[in-house]
Amino acid sequence: MFASAPSTLRHVAFALCLGLLAIGTSLAGARAQSDPLPSWNEGAAKKSITDFVAKVTAQGGAEFVPPTERIAVFDNDGTLWCEQPIYFQAAFALDRVKAMALDHPEWKNRQPFKAFLSGDRKALAAQGEKALLKLVAAAHSGMTTDEFAKSVADWLATAKHPRFDRPYNELIYQPMVELLAYLRANGFKTFIVSGGGVEFMRVWAEKAYGIPPEQVVGSSGVTQYRLDAAGKPSLLKLTKVQFIDDGPGKPAGINMMIGRRPIFAFGNSDGDHQMLQWTMAGGGARFAGIVHHTDAVREYAYDRPSKIGQLDKAWDEAKAKGWTVVDIKQDWKTVFAFER
Amino acid sequence: MFASAPSTLRHVAFALCLGLLAIGTSLAGARAQSDPLPSWNEGAAKKSITDFVAKVTAQGGAEFVPPTERIAVFDNDGTLWCEQPIYFQAAFALDRVKAMALDHPEWKNRQPFKAFLSGDRKALAAQGEKALLKLVAAAHSGMTTDEFAKSVADWLATAKHPRFDRPYNELIYQPMVELLAYLRANGFKTFIVSGGGVEFMRVWAEKAYGIPPEQVVGSSGVTQYRLDAAGKPSLLKLTKVQFIDDGPGKPAGINMMIGRRPIFAFGNSDGDHQMLQWTMAGGGARFAGIVHHTDAVREYAYDRPSKIGQLDKAWDEAKAKGWTVVDIKQDWKTVFAFER
Repeated sequence: MFASAPSTLRHVAFALCLGLLAIGTSLAGARAQSDPLPSWNEGAAKKSITDFVAKVTAQGGAEFVPPTERIAVFDNDGTLWCEQPIYFQAAFALDRVKAMALDHPEWKNRQPFKAFLSGDRKALAAQGEKALLKLVAAAHSGMTTDEFAKSVADWLATAKHPRFDRPYNELIYQPMVELLAYLRANGFKTFIVSGGGVEFMRVWAEKAYGIPPEQVVGSSGVTQYRLDAAGKPSLLKLTKVQFIDDGPGKPAGINMMIGRRPIFAFGNSDGDHQMLQWTMAGGGARFAGIVHHTDAVREYAYDRPSKIGQLDKAWDEAKAKGWTVVDIKQDWKTVFAFER
Repeated sequence: MFASAPSTLRHVAFALCLGLLAIGTSLAGARAQSDPLPSWNEGAAKKSITDFVAKVTAQGGAEFVPPTERIAVFDNDGTLWCEQPIYFQAAFALDRVKAMALDHPEWKNRQPFKAFLSGDRKALAAQGEKALLKLVAAAHSGMTTDEFAKSVADWLATAKHPRFDRPYNELIYQPMVELLAYLRANGFKTFIVSGGGVEFMRVWAEKAYGIPPEQVVGSSGVTQYRLDAAGKPSLLKLTKVQFIDDGPGKPAGINMMIGRRPIFAFGNSDGDHQMLQWTMAGGGARFAGIVHHTDAVREYAYDRPSKIGQLDKAWDEAKAKGWTVVDIKQDWKTVFAFER
């Protein structure tokens, strides 16, 4: 059809096509220029992130990293969502034991259940940390993986955080949700690497953070494969621990479950120290970030002496090595989405 | 520039743009219509695969599955690559022990190393399976994860299969490589779920199958995080087993490392039986496939009585339930790419 068109016409048509392409490109450019991290105040922390992403994504740049190697790992408790006044998974476990007590009349006379269910805090405390672990184990074993997932979903739908009076999965940090999306938009694959239970997190992590189940690394218990009388299989959750993904277990968990060394890692406590070291020890451009909880008004303020989320040795190394330390009070315009 | 152009000119230019688009579209269509599985003979096995993919990808269809749920899992040994006359990882381990013997003069006087290194098969056999496991363990522990990965890469670059006289990673099944690519082109996420060592497979799986390290599930050993005198971290491979991803361990491994139930699974032996059951027990459309080794000329022929890759109970269930059984002799036009 166009073979017989005058050559000037063809030139003009060609130029028009280029023009349309250019308009498309400039629209894309305008989108890219809007701030991808609107809940972050301008400052050194935000700049260190955007500078890092710019350099590893610059085609032909000295520090370019191909997309397959853009692995970003995030601790969860205290990094992506709140961890005070107690780890949310512990809150789940305690609520769950109360709910399960109806089916376990024998608990009324068995410690530590007796002390916990009767509200005898003194007796419970006297039994030490082991007592708490027994309660947590009870909430996490003796059921199938499907039943456990349902118990987590049911809890999330009803339980409220004691201070904020909101469902626990609303206590996710808006700046970190933006950071995850920003990294993915720049070709990163985002993973959770948490000391929390992998099956606990997967129930809600995809909706909360856009991180699918297969990109959640965490602690796990042994499961047992069984067939019922009708030949239907299930996985029974046993009390035996399979893997603890915390502290030095985080590099081990990354090695076992991801199999590539991340180039970008974010944590908030000494439990993330080895993950940050492991990330930074690779070749080429690297990023290590720490969320420092400094805002008792909008969230919580804690670091060196805290029982939950202690930040001490990792903080020292961050200062010594120039890792990014995010000061929530200074660096985050918004902490939780519901503030706005 | 074009605002003042005559309206006919603009119409022609617009038509040209549409024409270019149409050419692009029809080229794409032609590509899509070419056979995505050219190494598969036409037949029931191939048809069961393409029918399944068609129905789960049909937007608005009764059996449509959203892309995030399109999880496909593949056993490796005997399903994606050859496993005869011995598992390739065992061949690696034995070669490796020989190479390591130079640095271990004490092995000359220590069993089972003494029997193996001196070629005394009778003495080695007399020590039973435990002796073999000791040799395998020696090749898989006592070094860092980086050193281990290098030893696998070095072995692959030099070792040859005893019958085919080719590097082991050329003994991958061409029809399965095509199947993996076909599934990915249809929005599936493809995973290996193998009894083999996860660190062994990740060295070469991406190049061989297009499956990235983070989508390889396998058996693993415990690793220990260490900092050297200069503060450089490494993961030391210990002899202790972390997880055995075989038989009933496969659903457990899928649960721990993927966290979604697959809708598509392929295996070749009773070690895959539970993975196939687990896959088929989910809701909605499901696919279970078994590679049956029937071709002693182009590959190997073995099933019920085989010590390696025994196919017995899973085969019975496949027959009873109408799972797809691929007969290599009948169903595969090409087994290995080098045949062509």
